[in-house]
Amino acid sequence: MTVRIPLEQHALHVADLLAPVLSSPAVETVPIEDALGRVTADDVRSDVDLPLFRNSQMDGFAVRAADTAAAPIALEVSGDVPAGHAVPVVLTPGTAIRIMTGAPLPTGADAVVPVEDTELVLGRDDDLAGAVVEIRTSRAAGEYVRERGSDLARGEVIVPAGTALAARHLAALASAGVREVRVRARVRVGILTTGSELSGGETVEFGQVFDANGIALAALVTEAGAAVSFRGTSADDPAAFRAVLDDAVAVSDLVLTSGGISQGAFEVVREVLEPLGARVTTVAMQPGGPQATAVLGGVPIVCFPGNPVSTQVSFTVFVRAALRNAAGLQPLDPASALLATPVHSVAGRRQFLRGRVTTDGAVEQISGAGSHLVAGMARADVLIDIPADTTDLEVGADVTVWTL
Amino acid sequence: MTVRIPLEQHALHVADLLAPVLSSPAVETVPIEDALGRVTADDVRSDVDLPLFRNSQMDGFAVRAADTAAAPIALEVSGDVPAGHAVPVVLTPGTAIRIMTGAPLPTGADAVVPVEDTELVLGRDDDLAGAVVEIRTSRAAGEYVRERGSDLARGEVIVPAGTALAARHLAALASAGVREVRVRARVRVGILTTGSELSGGETVEFGQVFDANGIALAALVTEAGAAVSFRGTSADDPAAFRAVLDDAVAVSDLVLTSGGISQGAFEVVREVLEPLGARVTTVAMQPGGPQATAVLGGVPIVCFPGNPVSTQVSFTVFVRAALRNAAGLQPLDPASALLATPVHSVAGRRQFLRGRVTTDGAVEQISGAGSHLVAGMARADVLIDIPADTTDLEVGADVTVWTL
Repeated sequence: MTVRIPLEQHALHVADLLAPVLSSPAVETVPIEDALGRVTADDVRSDVDLPLFRNSQMDGFAVRAADTAAAPIALEVSGDVPAGHAVPVVLTPGTAIRIMTGAPLPTGADAVVPVEDTELVLGRDDDLAGAVVEIRTSRAAGEYVRERGSDLARGEVIVPAGTALAARHLAALASAGVREVRVRARVRVGILTTGSELSGGETVEFGQVFDANGIALAALVTEAGAAVSFRGTSADDPAAFRAVLDDAVAVSDLVLTSGGISQGAFEVVREVLEPLGARVTTVAMQPGGPQATAVLGGVPIVCFPGNPVSTQVSFTVFVRAALRNAAGLQPLDPASALLATPVHSVAGRRQFLRGRVTTDGAVEQISGAGSHLVAGMARADVLIDIPADTTDLEVGADVTVWTL
Repeated sequence: MTVRIPLEQHALHVADLLAPVLSSPAVETVPIEDALGRVTADDVRSDVDLPLFRNSQMDGFAVRAADTAAAPIALEVSGDVPAGHAVPVVLTPGTAIRIMTGAPLPTGADAVVPVEDTELVLGRDDDLAGAVVEIRTSRAAGEYVRERGSDLARGEVIVPAGTALAARHLAALASAGVREVRVRARVRVGILTTGSELSGGETVEFGQVFDANGIALAALVTEAGAAVSFRGTSADDPAAFRAVLDDAVAVSDLVLTSGGISQGAFEVVREVLEPLGARVTTVAMQPGGPQATAVLGGVPIVCFPGNPVSTQVSFTVFVRAALRNAAGLQPLDPASALLATPVHSVAGRRQFLRGRVTTDGAVEQISGAGSHLVAGMARADVLIDIPADTTDLEVGADVTVWTL
């Protein structure tokens, strides 16, 4: 008689196993150009004020606000400050200096009059010699002036630790002259699929199948923000499996395996890992009943059953959230939805049926419950999570769904 | 007097401009190992049945169902089919053959008895010579048998056109022996930032700033599923801008520029593109009023203003959805939320304030409205979208938010 443990028990066990790996990740320094999506390891503070200098918020004329009190008033244009101008400029009281957005405010100026509130009454846009500008409206000190440090003061945090860097963070870092940033290293995940039935090549012999689990786990790991550090396949031969497992462990923070852990006569993963203290269990779930974990050389190994749907469901239920969290990705928490089709499940097993979201937001079961239905899985966009004690649900029942 | 056009009008114009580029993308063939996240250009059909052959759903014993009618019954074990077994096997009526999950069903067998419903009464697991197995329960024909083609028949669609390939799709393709797949080429986006105030290097001179828009647009384009085909910067010099623009156009499906399109005296993008028929407008929005579009050599050019927040907001409002759609990514549609802080806006401008989602799901304004507040933008996780005719909103008001 097989003893089945509740899913939650195995999920907690896996979470405990992964916690040390995921909570103290290695740190690396990368150029900000390569940092999109990476997660900051520390608070990043600014060495400069933002804005770097007092500058104009508008294209227009820099003035002393006091000189505009009697507006409309005509002022001599005594200079011109294009953006990027390299020489500090001083405003002669009673005159105006043309200025572009972002250009440094002339010393002595304390306001900017937007160009649309002015008119050149002498001179031309392209020749300001002897020009005179009419200021239509009086201005208060500080109007259309961006004060140095008004966005961020030197020493303040630009981006806090634990931030998944997006465009807006990179823009702020670049603005402050930050060229590289310390980020969490991606979790390195080794992937090892097993089974003498797997064809290693482009064709299959009688009785063989193509390996779907290697590419699926690699894609799932990548989608979860981790890095695939190793890909390997082993036949059901203990020595061969052990050799490739050692290779995987050597370069990984975590190793995932598929196949070789159920009750059959040729269970290579179980055979190799049980003597090393592996925990091999049967979880009260479908698909994905057989599950195992082990630790080798300090590296956690999480072992999934080999049926392709079982492998994908097991990763999704037991490993995905932890990797996404380590990578700073948004959680894909299970949500609730209404059933659009009745479902039937086996008593005593938490069932993960393949489902699709209908146009009105309900979920319908598609494909059968079989763990080999890999094409059915491809048509699904959610897993419908049926509690272990539920056997039948009608249309309109409230269910939990996991986004794929 | 500046004429301001409604945001919707410019948004429609940009959408029309991009539609031809995005609706008839180029196609390329990639190995499935490199296809994660790519979008299928055609329906991908299977050359094989899935499962490839009739096989066992369980570890157990293959039998003729009729031989189990009188169960419990003892049957001679006449053979052994591990997974991957390379020789077709024939079942002698009245006997059982041990079989592993996924192994080809022996000819003549029509059911599998799971190992947990059996007991070896003679022989051992590791030596089946002369073994006899007791079958505890009778079985119907087809039980625990996976029929060839029951998941997907040869010629059926594995993955339809327009699918963003995820792990489950790649697993199904791999299972069917598909090694490469035709996918939409990523939209190639050239990025060109302008402004004599931009420092090209690691330090800034007086009046200069670091370029934040190049890295921001590159990251935004990448996040939207497109490929950055060109990165360049130009000072406010028409000949220099034109040269680098030609380089960008040569390798891009779409070019984005920042800066040089407002009402100032040194507006390089406007100066170069207006004679070529550019549409330069002022949109009734803040930040991001000045906007322009042009077409050069058949390539659309979308021009944003140069303030860093204006650039990021303009991309988000006018270009993001189209690129995400072309890349097969989920839309990030504006959603509604409740205000946690009162907000003030300018009459006649649609305002995009920087906001943050509070713990209870409401949104609070952070940072000011200024388009230079690049550090404030980095602290935001949404844009709060205030209609053009609204000037004041109280706490609890319903607003539209754009996820960043």
